[in-house]
Amino acid sequence: MKICRYDDNRFGIVRDNVVYDVTSVVEAELPAYRYPLPMGDQLVANLEAMRPKLEQAADSADGKPIADVEFRSPVANPTKIIGVPQNYEEHAQETLVDAGISHGQPRRKMEDQGLFLKASSALIGPSDGVAVRFGDRRTDHEAELGVIIGREGSDISYDDALSYVSGYAIAMDMVVRGKEDRSFRKSVDTYAVLGPWLVTADEIDDPGQLDFVLTIDNEIRQQNNTRNLILNLQGQIVWASKFYTLHPGDIIMSGTCAGVGPVKPGDVMHLEFENIGAMDVPVRAHDVY
Amino acid sequence: MKICRYDDNRFGIVRDNVVYDVTSVVEAELPAYRYPLPMGDQLVANLEAMRPKLEQAADSADGKPIADVEFRSPVANPTKIIGVPQNYEEHAQETLVDAGISHGQPRRKMEDQGLFLKASSALIGPSDGVAVRFGDRRTDHEAELGVIIGREGSDISYDDALSYVSGYAIAMDMVVRGKEDRSFRKSVDTYAVLGPWLVTADEIDDPGQLDFVLTIDNEIRQQNNTRNLILNLQGQIVWASKFYTLHPGDIIMSGTCAGVGPVKPGDVMHLEFENIGAMDVPVRAHDVY
Repeated sequence: MKICRYDDNRFGIVRDNVVYDVTSVVEAELPAYRYPLPMGDQLVANLEAMRPKLEQAADSADGKPIADVEFRSPVANPTKIIGVPQNYEEHAQETLVDAGISHGQPRRKMEDQGLFLKASSALIGPSDGVAVRFGDRRTDHEAELGVIIGREGSDISYDDALSYVSGYAIAMDMVVRGKEDRSFRKSVDTYAVLGPWLVTADEIDDPGQLDFVLTIDNEIRQQNNTRNLILNLQGQIVWASKFYTLHPGDIIMSGTCAGVGPVKPGDVMHLEFENIGAMDVPVRAHDVY
Repeated sequence: MKICRYDDNRFGIVRDNVVYDVTSVVEAELPAYRYPLPMGDQLVANLEAMRPKLEQAADSADGKPIADVEFRSPVANPTKIIGVPQNYEEHAQETLVDAGISHGQPRRKMEDQGLFLKASSALIGPSDGVAVRFGDRRTDHEAELGVIIGREGSDISYDDALSYVSGYAIAMDMVVRGKEDRSFRKSVDTYAVLGPWLVTADEIDDPGQLDFVLTIDNEIRQQNNTRNLILNLQGQIVWASKFYTLHPGDIIMSGTCAGVGPVKPGDVMHLEFENIGAMDVPVRAHDVY
């Protein structure tokens, strides 16, 4: 099943390039929540339980072509967004030789780098677009597989790891280059993109065998396959959950491949991911009021 | 006004070491929220508007001595928790000479370090206690002033900065030492402590002139005054909001002073902060199931 959030907080099931409006099911099945609000994304937390009703509603719902839809992040309320540093060898190599990426910092072993966080306030869907915050600094695209956690877990074992995954989406770990902490440079508003929808885990035979490509103006910038991840998804979930509890809707951005490079206002990033879909992400300048 | 969350999600106004139960006001004034849930902590977002009713209810509410209360984090739903690195000179100096803190990493200018994030899932109140996750690694206390943002803002000016503050609390930026990214080592479950209550900004004449002390077994470990902050609170808010939007309930942990050191299960950390109050934080070992 492919589920999306679109337009003005409507929810849809996507089939054959048509979005079927199932907002009424989400409204009927998810209760109103009192303060303090629960941790974790409540749509993701309840997705398996709601799934039969969502599928059934989609069978008779109004449809709208995906080309006519504005896609928001399929996860609205993540407790945290986790990043994995330098997780494709060729990207680690390009970082080493390009001072515009590394800013003079030497390569370190991944276990010494650790995972990092991106602010939840940075999260957008593709149609919201990326706003370049600092016109005088280099802002790069980083295309990668987004992994959405489905249920709470801590100290998760390797063998169980993938059973904690609700689904997958295309992710962009946008970043302003510089010397500051990753969790600062990667948390700028709009610098965490997730979309166009969440594909439930049962529809992806092997998340470690997915082709993906990012183009700008039809020029290929990044192209790779998740089989080249240095630390695979199971390893990422084990490592993360050794430090902290994962909650439904937590997003792991699993690492980007070689080809990262700057974007500028006016660009449109086009991404395609095998078994997930495609999305366009426009780039604009940040407005200071 | 001092407002706290205590016991099983009750809300109280604290006066002269007594907690007056105003839960009914919070329940009456804050609506039930539908998915997708709003960003930002809704108690903090609505605190100014609710304040007259909270104060009035406290006048006639049942009271309970603070010694009989379990204090939770006064902010329940922060969108993000922000940290400031090496923000007291003597702490920067001790880091330099203690490889157990620095792990071989050289001192860098603060502007090169950048702010960092701590996971919202790490947040607890003092009575919840800290669980040392890795018994074979050094886990340190870092006592500091917690700043709670009151309203949404981006690109905030220096002169306006403090007008975005809802209030203050005692904060602990607990950390496991090592080489990994700060946002990983400082995001372990229970490693972000906030309490015992939120003191509204109007009760603190100058947040840049507050004495504080942390003791364990009556031995002073950390003692300083916020006047020694290298980057003051206004500067922190300006810098943070230059990168991302601040939301109500966002917490800035403003940096710790010299004297950081390891804790072990069985310790009780006692903290006192001028014009805020005091709190005890027990330490236990993390259970792996």
